Amino acid sequence: MNTCTLGIDYGTNSVRALLVQTASGEPVATSTWNYAHGDAGIILDPQDPDVARQHPDDYIEGLKQTVRAVVAEAGEKGIGPDAIIGIGVDTTGSTPIPVDADGEPLTHDPAFKEDPAAMAWLWKDHTAHAEAAEFTALAGEHRPGYLAKCGGTYSSEWFWAKVLRCRRSAPHVFEAAHTWVEIADWIPALLTGTTHPDQVRRCICAAGHKAAFHPDWGGYPDAEFLALLDPALADLRQTLPDTACTIGDAVGTLTESWAQALGLRAGIPVAGGAFDAHLGAVGSGVRPGVLVKILGTSCCDMTVAPLSADLPDIPGLCGIVPESILPGNHGLEAGQSAVGDIFNWFVNRIAPGGSEAGSHEGLTEAAAGLRPGESGLLALDWHNGNRTVLVDQRLSGTLVGMNLHTSPGEIYRALIEATAFGARVIMERFEEYGVTIERVVNCGGISIKNPLVMQIYADIMNRPLEISRSSETCALGAAMAGAVVAGPDAGGHADFDAAAQAMTGVMDTVFTPIPENAAVYERLYRLYRQLHDTFGTSPGPGDAQNIMKDLLAIRDEVKGGS
Amino acid sequence: MNTCTLGIDYGTNSVRALLVQTASGEPVATSTWNYAHGDAGIILDPQDPDVARQHPDDYIEGLKQTVRAVVAEAGEKGIGPDAIIGIGVDTTGSTPIPVDADGEPLTHDPAFKEDPAAMAWLWKDHTAHAEAAEFTALAGEHRPGYLAKCGGTYSSEWFWAKVLRCRRSAPHVFEAAHTWVEIADWIPALLTGTTHPDQVRRCICAAGHKAAFHPDWGGYPDAEFLALLDPALADLRQTLPDTACTIGDAVGTLTESWAQALGLRAGIPVAGGAFDAHLGAVGSGVRPGVLVKILGTSCCDMTVAPLSADLPDIPGLCGIVPESILPGNHGLEAGQSAVGDIFNWFVNRIAPGGSEAGSHEGLTEAAAGLRPGESGLLALDWHNGNRTVLVDQRLSGTLVGMNLHTSPGEIYRALIEATAFGARVIMERFEEYGVTIERVVNCGGISIKNPLVMQIYADIMNRPLEISRSSETCALGAAMAGAVVAGPDAGGHADFDAAAQAMTGVMDTVFTPIPENAAVYERLYRLYRQLHDTFGTSPGPGDAQNIMKDLLAIRDEVKGGS
Repeated sequence: MNTCTLGIDYGTNSVRALLVQTASGEPVATSTWNYAHGDAGIILDPQDPDVARQHPDDYIEGLKQTVRAVVAEAGEKGIGPDAIIGIGVDTTGSTPIPVDADGEPLTHDPAFKEDPAAMAWLWKDHTAHAEAAEFTALAGEHRPGYLAKCGGTYSSEWFWAKVLRCRRSAPHVFEAAHTWVEIADWIPALLTGTTHPDQVRRCICAAGHKAAFHPDWGGYPDAEFLALLDPALADLRQTLPDTACTIGDAVGTLTESWAQALGLRAGIPVAGGAFDAHLGAVGSGVRPGVLVKILGTSCCDMTVAPLSADLPDIPGLCGIVPESILPGNHGLEAGQSAVGDIFNWFVNRIAPGGSEAGSHEGLTEAAAGLRPGESGLLALDWHNGNRTVLVDQRLSGTLVGMNLHTSPGEIYRALIEATAFGARVIMERFEEYGVTIERVVNCGGISIKNPLVMQIYADIMNRPLEISRSSETCALGAAMAGAVVAGPDAGGHADFDAAAQAMTGVMDTVFTPIPENAAVYERLYRLYRQLHDTFGTSPGPGDAQNIMKDLLAIRDEVKGGS
Repeated sequence: MNTCTLGIDYGTNSVRALLVQTASGEPVATSTWNYAHGDAGIILDPQDPDVARQHPDDYIEGLKQTVRAVVAEAGEKGIGPDAIIGIGVDTTGSTPIPVDADGEPLTHDPAFKEDPAAMAWLWKDHTAHAEAAEFTALAGEHRPGYLAKCGGTYSSEWFWAKVLRCRRSAPHVFEAAHTWVEIADWIPALLTGTTHPDQVRRCICAAGHKAAFHPDWGGYPDAEFLALLDPALADLRQTLPDTACTIGDAVGTLTESWAQALGLRAGIPVAGGAFDAHLGAVGSGVRPGVLVKILGTSCCDMTVAPLSADLPDIPGLCGIVPESILPGNHGLEAGQSAVGDIFNWFVNRIAPGGSEAGSHEGLTEAAAGLRPGESGLLALDWHNGNRTVLVDQRLSGTLVGMNLHTSPGEIYRALIEATAFGARVIMERFEEYGVTIERVVNCGGISIKNPLVMQIYADIMNRPLEISRSSETCALGAAMAGAVVAGPDAGGHADFDAAAQAMTGVMDTVFTPIPENAAVYERLYRLYRQLHDTFGTSPGPGDAQNIMKDLLAIRDEVKGGS
């Protein structure tokens, strides 16, 4: 029988289910459902641009909507539930939800149903910057190892900062929560009936990259350290296990009730969860020497190195975690907090309506007519902070070089270039620390939809850029995990090497650097690095690294005083 | 008889004639004519944003159109030509035109009629930045005094830089020109039949502020120095006089033919010309202790100090020139290269069309709803370079602090604030060098039309801001010069003190600083100064003062290579 495997991909605005052929990775059926709550699925706070939450009900409803649709579509093609041998799940993260002693989200309690603090704290929620700084400072003093594995700075986007922020800003929620669970762990637990806090498996991907979990110190941070942040965190530590699973581990099998709800066969294995970027890398065929860039609203840069390799700690990397991407390999994660989000901001929020039409298409056309360096503009791509290599959410976007003729198309191109310069900083940081990049494989919406962006990236990174064959690499990677946990006897794969060989590939199109563009961009890149270091690092006097922070301090005071 | 006096005001996009009562300054009639050539009167070069020229024919046609209209309107009110006792003229500058041996503009020759290099080189033409830098370097070495009087840096906007630029970029024009005449001198000469190069009077305002003319060294730069720039400039020096006139001097009387052409009485005196800002200051009642700000597309900051005062040279001031504004006083000129032009750029070129309507009104409403510091944005107002205190046209606009929620209204307010911070830098520079500012009187379009801008200026400068009573202060100042050169016997005034007493005043409305806004702006101003110095000065390592220049160097190379 030609078997299939199911990947479920929880994104920032929607959830997607993808059913693929186990033998080839070819799609059989797919379905997407947009979250119903908030602004495109995100609960915002007009008073605080740092707030970004999601309603757990959207995750459950999205699961039903998309999987049922996929099963129905497969059935129309003559593929029944028996052919579906395994399930994998990827989600955004760090996106933890507070749950009660039974593992139920607090939002299932009517008292918390509409309370943003009781919802999922979406990856891009940046309210916890003070708590992140506190973690960084305390770890620097007492547990430097915690920082070495996460790039030297704990982020406001991560688990402990968010939980501590909730403790301080919404103590009623913190008190009501028995523990906090990443949605990457909670969805597989839901499907396998293991949401109880004693049973829920925590994946190394989320735990290792966002919660300072590492085998070197026996798992999560110790209670003594957490008590320095807040004694309540030491209590919370008791609810967390000392081990973590990989995507090669089944966390359980599909329950009878969920099998009925989704139209699947009960008992098929569900793989340990992982973040979308990690499984996107898997779905793009990541292996040692291959950098996978997942280019969407933000960008994740993922690669792996054999566990046997002698890897140094790499300053500014979000994390180096054993087996977080592929079993048997160190997982290396870097990224940019905003890429497509910056372009979307310019088109939708600024909405330039001048000589170029106010659309991505019109602005792309205008930008494509420009040569590198022609506008005299240079931007910093920090509209949502800087994840790698500065790990600082309180940096902000900057545009230098405007004159009275500066056009929307010029600004649009400068914003694209800024994100490409940021991408090059990340690639160079990998290589500076001995992680060789032989190939760059891109996936995500931008890689498929915008050849101008890809050409600019090739010119600025000065590398040929390949494009993943699948347009749904995250869901494909999740489906690959489903195939691996199902195993060869059930029609799946023995390991991820075999799954990648069978199920992944790249397109014929390769974006190759144009030498004359690359030459100009070499010069602009040096200026970008200077601007980057002027605002973003603190080597010595004369720099401007305080300016962005001071602006935010004034802003916060002004808003706080209202 | 109630006498009247005529001011003719040549602006950047139009010319205006204003007839006022000599006794009160009250307007009798006014007329404006928009220049016919180019883009709103400016001949641009799509390949080079630094180019800005004007066609001399527009000046002549505008003279006829507006004066005839004013005379006709006055006639309808029962005021005949006999009541009009004098004429004053103000213009933009430095705006020199090349003329032939008869004093005719080269553009009157069909061979040059459409040649931008043979037209007037408008004040905001910035093509001569290399030549300005060369003047600065050579003067620094050989004639440091030349620089001390013009703020330490010779500007690309000024006479010698432009003439030298023409010599190099359009030698056919330079060769055909006998000499170059500021339009501030050429219009009075035209009216009085003294355009011949041997006869044309040069005003101290243009000569002193833009052409390094100073009594200390006997007038214009000496031929020996000019020969270091180019031997041809030494030859040109021979066509220039060793004396200059003030607005208190009549350069001649109205010719019969121009009297007929305009409907005026032949023989009435025409005052020496001056720049619009200088006569705007006069029309706003400038005197020692009063800073006049002329807020329009750009901003001029003008004040005076008695000739007897012991004034130091002031670094970064465009100029300190005896009698350039008011006879009997040093004239001190500073300014910002763009103010309203920046707001216009954002509205018209970027044309944001988001939640706020894409208009000055809509954006003003959105900006007015914000509190100081709330947006987290900080901008540099250098979209057209920086005139004071950096005297550097190759600086550019910058915006720091953007995030993914940043709105058009926030940016619009940040741009307003940036120009206000720039205004404060100028005011503080005056005071640092002992020029006391007791009152700030504003005039120009923005001062009348935009109370939000004025309140932000009051809050940021932390001074009460008064508004000139006249809405046409430049033309009023020119008319006052006409009244003074006519003299009391003809129904005019004995001197500018008497003219100011009779003809100028301020409105009842005063913009007063709001203490809580001023407190936040104090903090933002310190950050502005830091950003200003980071990009704009070169004190030591670690600064980013090369970035804007390097971007322009790359731009120029890329464009030059096309």
